[in-house]
Amino acid sequence: MSHTFETFPNPHPQRNYLIAHLVHEFTSLCPMTGQPDFARIRIRYVAGATCVELKSLKMYLQSFRNRGIFYEHVTNVMLNDLVAVTHPKWMEITTRWSTRGGIHSVITAEHGVKPGA
Amino acid sequence: MSHTFETFPNPHPQRNYLIAHLVHEFTSLCPMTGQPDFARIRIRYVAGATCVELKSLKMYLQSFRNRGIFYEHVTNVMLNDLVAVTHPKWMEITTRWSTRGGIHSVITAEHGVKPGA
Amino acid sequence: MSHTFETFPNPHPQRNYLIAHLVHEFTSLCPMTGQPDFARIRIRYVAGATCVELKSLKMYLQSFRNRGIFYEHVTNVMLNDLVAVTHPKWMEITTRWSTRGGIHSVITAEHGVKPGA
Amino acid sequence: MSHTFETFPNPHPQRNYLIAHLVHEFTSLCPMTGQPDFARIRIRYVAGATCVELKSLKMYLQSFRNRGIFYEHVTNVMLNDLVAVTHPKWMEITTRWSTRGGIHSVITAEHGVKPGA
Amino acid sequence: MSHTFETFPNPHPQRNYLIAHLVHEFTSLCPMTGQPDFARIRIRYVAGATCVELKSLKMYLQSFRNRGIFYEHVTNVMLNDLVAVTHPKWMEITTRWSTRGGIHSVITAEHGVKPGA
Amino acid sequence: MSHTFETFPNPHPQRNYLIAHLVHEFTSLCPMTGQPDFARIRIRYVAGATCVELKSLKMYLQSFRNRGIFYEHVTNVMLNDLVAVTHPKWMEITTRWSTRGGIHSVITAEHGVKPGA
Amino acid sequence: MSHTFETFPNPHPQRNYLIAHLVHEFTSLCPMTGQPDFARIRIRYVAGATCVELKSLKMYLQSFRNRGIFYEHVTNVMLNDLVAVTHPKWMEITTRWSTRGGIHSVITAEHGVKPGA
Amino acid sequence: MSHTFETFPNPHPQRNYLIAHLVHEFTSLCPMTGQPDFARIRIRYVAGATCVELKSLKMYLQSFRNRGIFYEHVTNVMLNDLVAVTHPKWMEITTRWSTRGGIHSVITAEHGVKPGA
Amino acid sequence: MSHTFETFPNPHPQRNYLIAHLVHEFTSLCPMTGQPDFARIRIRYVAGATCVELKSLKMYLQSFRNRGIFYEHVTNVMLNDLVAVTHPKWMEITTRWSTRGGIHSVITAEHGVKPGA
Amino acid sequence: MSHTFETFPNPHPQRNYLIAHLVHEFTSLCPMTGQPDFARIRIRYVAGATCVELKSLKMYLQSFRNRGIFYEHVTNVMLNDLVAVTHPKWMEITTRWSTRGGIHSVITAEHGVKPGA
Repeated sequence: MSHTFETFPNPHPQRNYLIAHLVHEFTSLCPMTGQPDFARIRIRYVAGATCVELKSLKMYLQSFRNRGIFYEHVTNVMLNDLVAVTHPKWMEITTRWSTRGGIHSVITAEHGVKPGA
Repeated sequence: MSHTFETFPNPHPQRNYLIAHLVHEFTSLCPMTGQPDFARIRIRYVAGATCVELKSLKMYLQSFRNRGIFYEHVTNVMLNDLVAVTHPKWMEITTRWSTRGGIHSVITAEHGVKPGA
Repeated sequence: MSHTFETFPNPHPQRNYLIAHLVHEFTSLCPMTGQPDFARIRIRYVAGATCVELKSLKMYLQSFRNRGIFYEHVTNVMLNDLVAVTHPKWMEITTRWSTRGGIHSVITAEHGVKPGA
Repeated sequence: MSHTFETFPNPHPQRNYLIAHLVHEFTSLCPMTGQPDFARIRIRYVAGATCVELKSLKMYLQSFRNRGIFYEHVTNVMLNDLVAVTHPKWMEITTRWSTRGGIHSVITAEHGVKPGA
Repeated sequence: MSHTFETFPNPHPQRNYLIAHLVHEFTSLCPMTGQPDFARIRIRYVAGATCVELKSLKMYLQSFRNRGIFYEHVTNVMLNDLVAVTHPKWMEITTRWSTRGGIHSVITAEHGVKPGA
Repeated sequence: MSHTFETFPNPHPQRNYLIAHLVHEFTSLCPMTGQPDFARIRIRYVAGATCVELKSLKMYLQSFRNRGIFYEHVTNVMLNDLVAVTHPKWMEITTRWSTRGGIHSVITAEHGVKPGA
Repeated sequence: MSHTFETFPNPHPQRNYLIAHLVHEFTSLCPMTGQPDFARIRIRYVAGATCVELKSLKMYLQSFRNRGIFYEHVTNVMLNDLVAVTHPKWMEITTRWSTRGGIHSVITAEHGVKPGA
Repeated sequence: MSHTFETFPNPHPQRNYLIAHLVHEFTSLCPMTGQPDFARIRIRYVAGATCVELKSLKMYLQSFRNRGIFYEHVTNVMLNDLVAVTHPKWMEITTRWSTRGGIHSVITAEHGVKPGA
Repeated sequence: MSHTFETFPNPHPQRNYLIAHLVHEFTSLCPMTGQPDFARIRIRYVAGATCVELKSLKMYLQSFRNRGIFYEHVTNVMLNDLVAVTHPKWMEITTRWSTRGGIHSVITAEHGVKPGA
Repeated sequence: MSHTFETFPNPHPQRNYLIAHLVHEFTSLCPMTGQPDFARIRIRYVAGATCVELKSLKMYLQSFRNRGIFYEHVTNVMLNDLVAVTHPKWMEITTRWSTRGGIHSVITAEHGVKPGA
């Protein structure tokens, strides 16, 4: 599956500053049972030449609504997709999943090294 | 006691990403009095070749329900059992026990060195 | 199943005062799947001639640990058992169950009319 | 659209007790834009002869996942559907919708008169 | 100033149900100093034949952005405007203003009698 | 001590609406020890012909800064002073005092009957 | 055991206003085991001719520090002692006890009828 | 656009100490839709020879009220403007924007290296 | 004063894991005024050959109930006593005291170097 | 202005331990307007030969009650005064000021280097 996010030029490319988008509304399907999963997602990055456009990001996240995919996989897939389109200096994605059988899972993946860390 | 968790292949083994499972429902027995103990458990790890399957993890944790075991021991035993089966690059287990006699105990044990730490 | 709670004489029977016991640790089994259920329980009552002894109450609640029983049923059974032994002027029991499939259930049953309400 | 919830017999029909189901995970579509809406839902009722079966309730709520429907309408439709199948003595449904354009909406509808109120 | 909110027909006019809109983002100007004031606003009503359309409500609230008006006055003006257009069975408006000189003000006005209250 | 608050005409005198002012910053002196006391104060009222002007209220409350006065007395004195100047239909004052010797005191006094209560 | 609280004259006896003292620090002994119990206590009353002096109240509450007494009894004893000395129009005492064996108890007793209730 | 903040001399220039201003009330316009955006802003700095005067800072922030500007841009523009006028040893600005389409954005930019970090 | 805590052998001495005991109920006396002080206490350690037995710890902490001792002193005395008996690889004690005269004090002392820190 | 705090000898001078005093009640005056300012203050230090006596600290902080002084200045003045009298190995003071014009300020100054940091 290929994605064509819209981006816009980083207005201050000479400075390494931090952008975070906290997504309160995400849902996908469990690939085993077909039951809905719900998550909150945090995307943090230091932009290279381009920034993620918010409406385009929303549409991308909605593309998982009726797709069966595991927690660990969706986190890495999102990171790969966003990195491929926006080439950030650093990016990190955290997904926090609603409780299933008394267990609440949180997955965090990052790409590159956070500038100044 | 031997355990045979189910695991599944790490879908992104080339990346060191963090997986956390927060368990809200755990109960075992006090080995001295036979009275129930209750705990919340946090398992965090960076997977090697395999990931812990959630249903299997739930069944494993339920195997302590009628077993008498000390706080310090159960924390280390879980860590040893999970490490033996999944061979993670790093794993940490924290158990938070309900108050007994006005004292609330928290035990944290880890295996290996957290990548990037 | 018959229960023999211990009770103690109400030390101030001439006054209608309110006693509440909030139980943070309760577990029973799902009668369908055999899986553990967890709940917090609130017992409120205006005593008649006798009060519920706390250690005895704890033992009674532990008797559900390995028993399969529905949410609605266990709430009413507890109320019936406690009323039969202590004959309160008024009693109310609320059970708050941990989330299953994204649904958190709360059941409240009462016996008699709260004095002064 | 007709619905065939499963129900089970009220185990204590002679007592008016309160049952609440708090649903943390609900999503439907906006009928104007087709964009996803998210809500938390609270269902409270005093059962007549039958109780709502939880798994069946979950499946019913999932049937709205890809359906376009207004906040005010879905709240009343759910109430009508649940009343038609379970004939409760009293039922109330509250839907709390995620923020849109800086506005967070909450709709509450009830059927019948709450016993003892 | 005249307002022409859009409304839509109440989909369940035969039932008295409660609609609440919580507005997190409101700003007007102080009529004395011209300085910005900020508030959160809660609108609750039982609809008659028509409901308030959300986008139209948002535009109406934005019309105060550059208008100088006192706390007590704006609360009553909003209530009068919304009542004039939608003819609700009952409506209540609460405005919660950000702190000025260590004082945080809250104004509540209602129209009609809440059904069932 | 006489006070001359400024007031302004109630802009909607035909409607009984509720005005609340929550004061986060108040200090007076203990009449026994001369030590500072600190409190949060809530003033709620239904205005008659006039409303309390906020800046004037702030200056009035500051007049207690170096005055020795008991918790119970200051609460009633404020109520009397505000009633004498603004002739509200109903007024209530609550003072919440910071902890002294492990005891936190709260005093509430009201004048008249709250309309609609 | 007799107690001689100090009191002071109610400065506004013609008005029924509410006084609350929230005590964060209370400890007594369990009469069965001799182990310490800890509680938070709320005393609310409408004064008659006299008010409870705070330092005197603190000393009275400290007199329970090394005394073995049951939850239900201490709550009623305090109420009786305070009523006997201050003759309030209404008084209510709530004691909230720290968790023992997973159970947290709260006892509430009142004397007389709250004016205006 | 040029800005002329007022400043005042740093009263303790020989010590590197941290100053933070947390702004609860900020609003600008979306440059795409013209709709209002709302944010909380945190400014932290170690002063050089001059400090930011608070009233002047408030007026500067209000200058964005009717200006269309993107999240990423406004954060960097503020940092540039404040640095140009006050020449701090270190400065960091964080802007936290209200939710749009279920996404809450936070931007952080800094100038220089925090002394002692 | 000498203390003889009971200890038990560290069940996993080959691993440096963290044990924390949070004590919600502690009281001693002020050495100046004889008035009760209350505190919450956190004990964290990495065990050597032995672990602190919980019931013994509780009895030790109760030995301060009627002892006059300063905040700074009691924190260091506890640390010395616990280190002398259990010879931990690292230990830290934090005491958080209830508010006196509007001031809330927190003292933290540690022994040794935390492994891995 | 000279200050003569009372101090007491550090009871454990051979150990570098951390002392924190959190002051919930502080007020001074704005040097521009004469209006009251309110703050919470945190003092943290590692003592040298002497510790700050609490009652003396309280009296010192009260000496600012009717003094006009800027946020940045008062923070540094306190630090200088306390350092001059007690010669700590390390000391840090944070002042958190109540909101003025929608802005909440926090100032942090330190003296020396925190041992072990």
